[in-house]
Amino acid sequence: MKDETTRLRVRYSETDQMGTFYNSRALEWFEVGRTEWLRSRKMPYAEMESRGVMLPLVEAHLEFFSRAVYDDELSLSVNAEMVGKARVRFNVSIAHTGENQQDVVRGYTTHAVTDGDGRPTRPPRWFIETIGT
Amino acid sequence: MKDETTRLRVRYSETDQMGTFYNSRALEWFEVGRTEWLRSRKMPYAEMESRGVMLPLVEAHLEFFSRAVYDDELSLSVNAEMVGKARVRFNVSIAHTGENQQDVVRGYTTHAVTDGDGRPTRPPRWFIETIGT
Amino acid sequence: MKDETTRLRVRYSETDQMGTFYNSRALEWFEVGRTEWLRSRKMPYAEMESRGVMLPLVEAHLEFFSRAVYDDELSLSVNAEMVGKARVRFNVSIAHTGENQQDVVRGYTTHAVTDGDGRPTRPPRWFIETIGT
Amino acid sequence: MKDETTRLRVRYSETDQMGTFYNSRALEWFEVGRTEWLRSRKMPYAEMESRGVMLPLVEAHLEFFSRAVYDDELSLSVNAEMVGKARVRFNVSIAHTGENQQDVVRGYTTHAVTDGDGRPTRPPRWFIETIGT
Repeated sequence: MKDETTRLRVRYSETDQMGTFYNSRALEWFEVGRTEWLRSRKMPYAEMESRGVMLPLVEAHLEFFSRAVYDDELSLSVNAEMVGKARVRFNVSIAHTGENQQDVVRGYTTHAVTDGDGRPTRPPRWFIETIGT
Repeated sequence: MKDETTRLRVRYSETDQMGTFYNSRALEWFEVGRTEWLRSRKMPYAEMESRGVMLPLVEAHLEFFSRAVYDDELSLSVNAEMVGKARVRFNVSIAHTGENQQDVVRGYTTHAVTDGDGRPTRPPRWFIETIGT
Repeated sequence: MKDETTRLRVRYSETDQMGTFYNSRALEWFEVGRTEWLRSRKMPYAEMESRGVMLPLVEAHLEFFSRAVYDDELSLSVNAEMVGKARVRFNVSIAHTGENQQDVVRGYTTHAVTDGDGRPTRPPRWFIETIGT
Repeated sequence: MKDETTRLRVRYSETDQMGTFYNSRALEWFEVGRTEWLRSRKMPYAEMESRGVMLPLVEAHLEFFSRAVYDDELSLSVNAEMVGKARVRFNVSIAHTGENQQDVVRGYTTHAVTDGDGRPTRPPRWFIETIGT
């Protein structure tokens, strides 16, 4: 459950004609947050996939609070928890860095745990320990 | 509230290494659905923006039901409704075409109604009529 | 070498804060053009990959001529040719539809021909016939 | 002309079903490289745009040398030069970090210099000094 923080900058390619970031980029940033959270738990997602565990997304929820423009530095705060016996949920908050620290997006993604062929599987013990401790 | 249907094919650029479409593409397809829904109501979004009404996204929810791979043809079914006095919600279902018609993604996006500078504004009558009838 | 034409509309997600499409989208549109060209030749790329032939990109060149904004309809004109014995090149022109027909982007992508594991391979006869006739 | 180096990791959203990064992402990484190069020259692109100078892309060339997969760390090496009196070219090399340092993509983007409305403009002296020294 421990929070892990990572940072990124809004790319020009992530803006749209409204002058802020295009909404779907938030889900891409959530993924950057998951990647760094798992790395901080010593279980990089690439290694997880090579062990035959995949985490396809089954549900996502996002709330947008304020604008972020090109080159703004954002801070991602992430934690994870098991949902029932076979799903994992990543909670993500993205905020401006610096003085204001205003929230930009908050939400979560819920993932099934599957084998390398995409079939639902009982999460192995090492997986539950990675998420849970 | 009337449903409008449009079609698209999964692009190679929308796949990821899991072999299915990357999750954030669903939000881009939702936007294609909104665009075509508004066009079918004789109020293209580009014209709406040129009248000084913008619809920034404030909330999104997505549920993922089945895989869709490169070049699959998908059908988007969209409807819209006012939420309170100042927000509009687009409900979207994306399904496979052809015989199986299996659901791929379902969800909604909720939008504020703002003026051209992004300030919340009371939706003009023509806007409510576009959505509501 | 025969030209094949397909159409698409600029998505909101493809715009950037300059108000036109973001430059990398052109390569995604080139791919839509290749996909439709191969379909018109009765050899959909998905089927090609299932036969164990992949076409990773080795070189791309793009020239940008004019703006295209959200919801503009664009026309893609594509042809293909073998380059030496083991490469294929797709030439793509993207232009506005309607009266002006102004060029938006022109360029090409050159592809190696590989087997399903990404190793360079001698193009099978059916492949050369698909491209060449 | 001085080279500036920055690093990034391949995001899952940037992969495709071939298991490597999708080709158009290279142009998005080139932009990350330009952004960091300009920052290193004390002229962030966001500040440049707020001074009324924009750099729309007019030409791009890319060569792809080797695969890079999800979570690989890549190193971007960038330099810039004036091309004639009114254009600027950014040369970019992207390579694997670590021991092998194999090239992944090399290429360039050429940009017009325009005012805030997109009209070609004579580059101001501070701009030429930023690029040239």
